[in-house]
Amino acid sequence: MTIGIIGLGLIGGSMAIDLRRNKFADKFLGCDNIDLNAMTAQRIGLVDEVMPYEELIKKSDLILLAVPVSAALRMLSDILDKINDNQVVVDICSTKEKLNDSVHYHPRRKNYVASHPMAGTEFSGPWAAIPNLFAGRAGIICNAEDSDPKAVELVRSMYDSLNMRVIYMRAAHHDVHTAYVSHISHIISFALALTVLDKEKNEKNIFDLASGGFASTARLAKSNPEMWVPIFMQNKENVLSVLDSYMDKLQQFKNALEENDESRLKVLIDDANRIKRILR
Amino acid sequence: MTIGIIGLGLIGGSMAIDLRRNKFADKFLGCDNIDLNAMTAQRIGLVDEVMPYEELIKKSDLILLAVPVSAALRMLSDILDKINDNQVVVDICSTKEKLNDSVHYHPRRKNYVASHPMAGTEFSGPWAAIPNLFAGRAGIICNAEDSDPKAVELVRSMYDSLNMRVIYMRAAHHDVHTAYVSHISHIISFALALTVLDKEKNEKNIFDLASGGFASTARLAKSNPEMWVPIFMQNKENVLSVLDSYMDKLQQFKNALEENDESRLKVLIDDANRIKRILR
Repeated sequence: MTIGIIGLGLIGGSMAIDLRRNKFADKFLGCDNIDLNAMTAQRIGLVDEVMPYEELIKKSDLILLAVPVSAALRMLSDILDKINDNQVVVDICSTKEKLNDSVHYHPRRKNYVASHPMAGTEFSGPWAAIPNLFAGRAGIICNAEDSDPKAVELVRSMYDSLNMRVIYMRAAHHDVHTAYVSHISHIISFALALTVLDKEKNEKNIFDLASGGFASTARLAKSNPEMWVPIFMQNKENVLSVLDSYMDKLQQFKNALEENDESRLKVLIDDANRIKRILR
Repeated sequence: MTIGIIGLGLIGGSMAIDLRRNKFADKFLGCDNIDLNAMTAQRIGLVDEVMPYEELIKKSDLILLAVPVSAALRMLSDILDKINDNQVVVDICSTKEKLNDSVHYHPRRKNYVASHPMAGTEFSGPWAAIPNLFAGRAGIICNAEDSDPKAVELVRSMYDSLNMRVIYMRAAHHDVHTAYVSHISHIISFALALTVLDKEKNEKNIFDLASGGFASTARLAKSNPEMWVPIFMQNKENVLSVLDSYMDKLQQFKNALEENDESRLKVLIDDANRIKRILR
């Protein structure tokens, strides 16, 4: 099988590494609108060949659309226009509903599988691609009933080969859940970085003191705007709703502290500690 | 040398492991007001003997006060009452100004070194103690001029033996800086955990989707209230000030998103990305 990867970044590149090693496919084609990404991906062996977008679509059995969601929205319908009935297109975007809606009435809708592998790092580009990025993570397939069962089966087997847990859900549910477990984490990390960097303007040495806790909480603030602005925009309503809940929790901490209410602070922290049930 | 550790938790226990291995001291005594902690610390070999507080003070050359800052505030003056002029007391608390002020006029003030090793994990108790917790981290000594130079030298050599970078600063500056690089990270992590746990009441499977980003950002939410309520209370003014700045940054994200201002979102994220300079 030949896989054509559109978008040779962290996700597309990391998938190529494991799918090649696990022999899920034997040929990997790639294209990227940034020449340096395409040349690097070929140079470090993520893909066998880079080629123009139209040629890649013609030559691939499975087309992996691994671009920011704003680009995916522009491209998906065009890709479906160009494929034949034996080809399958799968995307990896972190928001699903609007992308899915954009091709709902496309005559080749059934050749598309709406999908999101819940894995990543704060880095981007082909040089950030690593092995085993997906192992043990959730591989989500949305609105599977709108896809050809054989296309869904192909994507399911791809996620199996990456050792992912396949989960089926509605695109709308997916977008609510990712707002909670992924998108909000990025906003709070960006905001933390901005807060501390503002302070650093006057206090050059503040980072000498940074401990592991800060590094952990601010890690996601390295994530790039090309990927995240479109995600926030596409999932605006859900993200704003979670952000309101989150700011309300911060306000509860603030009120308790202002009122010297130690018992209230303890209740808040005890409640938060229940996260231990879930995060090991 | 004999070290007496008051408070056999993560920090006291982890220090004991490395200070023993590096032969900084040859005898380790311990006490803890929780019997299970004391028994465990002896059973797993963190300390050689556990004994009552008064006896430990009598028998120790260096007394390591490794308790929550609220307990340290109650105990420090009493410990200084009980020691002789050849003994040194050092604490490890995450807030320094009020604790330092509490013994400013104590006749044995110079036997005390106000200190904070900037290291930790989200876990607590003697069973959480690990080797190499402190290597490469900042070991802060505050208001060193109020301590006997020999006492400061002893603590400096202790941090050297733990491979820490020793930094001297005023207690008041320390408390501002830790509000930025440590305390706020804990509040935002607690608030994130509360936000997501609230949602989970209705959506049992939300955590199936949690990726590494969420785990990283919510990690500190496992931290215990016994340690953190006193820190927030002791550093209330600084923490509230940082919390205000932080909530203002979140509000900027919220406004940009509500107004569909993609270029403003990009500027915010680009600015936050400058954290790459500091966090590798």
